[in-house]
Amino acid sequence: MSGAEYDDRQAIHEVVLRYCRGIDRLDMDLVRSTYHPDGIDHHTGFDGGIDDFLTWVEPGLRRLGGTMHLLANHLVDLDGDQAVAETYGQAVHWSEHRQGNFTTGFRYVDHLTRRDGRWAVSERWAVREWTHSETPGSLGTAVGPVGRRDRDDPLYLALARLR
Amino acid sequence: MSGAEYDDRQAIHEVVLRYCRGIDRLDMDLVRSTYHPDGIDHHTGFDGGIDDFLTWVEPGLRRLGGTMHLLANHLVDLDGDQAVAETYGQAVHWSEHRQGNFTTGFRYVDHLTRRDGRWAVSERWAVREWTHSETPGSLGTAVGPVGRRDRDDPLYLALARLR
Amino acid sequence: MSGAEYDDRQAIHEVVLRYCRGIDRLDMDLVRSTYHPDGIDHHTGFDGGIDDFLTWVEPGLRRLGGTMHLLANHLVDLDGDQAVAETYGQAVHWSEHRQGNFTTGFRYVDHLTRRDGRWAVSERWAVREWTHSETPGSLGTAVGPVGRRDRDDPLYLALARLR
Repeated sequence: MSGAEYDDRQAIHEVVLRYCRGIDRLDMDLVRSTYHPDGIDHHTGFDGGIDDFLTWVEPGLRRLGGTMHLLANHLVDLDGDQAVAETYGQAVHWSEHRQGNFTTGFRYVDHLTRRDGRWAVSERWAVREWTHSETPGSLGTAVGPVGRRDRDDPLYLALARLR
Repeated sequence: MSGAEYDDRQAIHEVVLRYCRGIDRLDMDLVRSTYHPDGIDHHTGFDGGIDDFLTWVEPGLRRLGGTMHLLANHLVDLDGDQAVAETYGQAVHWSEHRQGNFTTGFRYVDHLTRRDGRWAVSERWAVREWTHSETPGSLGTAVGPVGRRDRDDPLYLALARLR
Repeated sequence: MSGAEYDDRQAIHEVVLRYCRGIDRLDMDLVRSTYHPDGIDHHTGFDGGIDDFLTWVEPGLRRLGGTMHLLANHLVDLDGDQAVAETYGQAVHWSEHRQGNFTTGFRYVDHLTRRDGRWAVSERWAVREWTHSETPGSLGTAVGPVGRRDRDDPLYLALARLR
């Protein structure tokens, strides 16, 4: 691997990591910086541009005591100024008493592009895999991307668009 | 670290990551590609070669609604064309209703080798650490590698064979 | 990124990974090797130097059946011979029957320094985020660093000292 490819991979990984730091520390500017200005987000209960996403997500975060978005498996298909990254994660949301009460397993399937030397998200599918709640009924009924185990999984759709 | 060592480490990490992608997306060819043809797997309830492993594991996966194998801590001891990688993980298995119902903590202790330029698993110990089930009784009684906190842990046995 | 910076980042990540291997395998020498001799640790229920930390932590670990400290998100701000690393983690502690019974979400906020070519922890804040216990009442009432979502979070305090 060339040094340039290593730098691309490091920059792409940091985009996803900084997104989570922004969400968990309520630093919305940091969250915004991980998308291009015309970036699109598909979330459970939301579908639209980054500006609208921030308006939608921040009040929900503020109603919670805190969140922790752990990131795990991170695999990148890199193609010049474009990339598809799949990142596994587990998000814990708690109320003010710091007892874990609502956990989700997800994958971020990200289409990233490099513009003027900066890697950022052009389009994200926040794919829900599973949920666990200690307070039944709290999950709501919002819909959004869900994981599949065939070639219609959002990962394969994003990779197909890359190639 | 030399560029060659970096490439080896990246290739080894991707072997373990692609294994999980294959399992979670039911892509058995991808799973197979992460072992050498004579690769051996030691799992809870299974002990044998990669072909038999695939025959054993696929029906169990298909009976589930889905799985998510999160990988975390990854430490590699590299020695030329051989390596021992320890990778921590947490696997969530759910039924068709997407409620997490059976979770395991594990470590993959992998003896990897490079043959004709390709890194793949020669022998894996899938070491079970803990389990949690929301449906009591579902864990079964199968046996397999378990973690220890002395020098008989599978990690140290694999490292001893490397050195 | 230069090769030297890559080596620094790899060495810093391994410090945190080896700490967890040491704790989970009860290898106290390995734990000790990840701190400088005058290293400081701030933990839930402990505040002091590395020697006292080891004396404090080992009996508690031995009373358990086992532990697994999964590490996830790892972001490093590097400044010459100093660095601040934030590492997300989830620790599972179990009794002898290998049923997960007490889990914590945490962040290690580490001030690391390089001395004589060796990166190690100079000061650690083990920041507790959330806890989950299957055996109510087992968490105790010890105090220590906790996460915040404003600029008084231990991460920002450590970064401010770096800059």
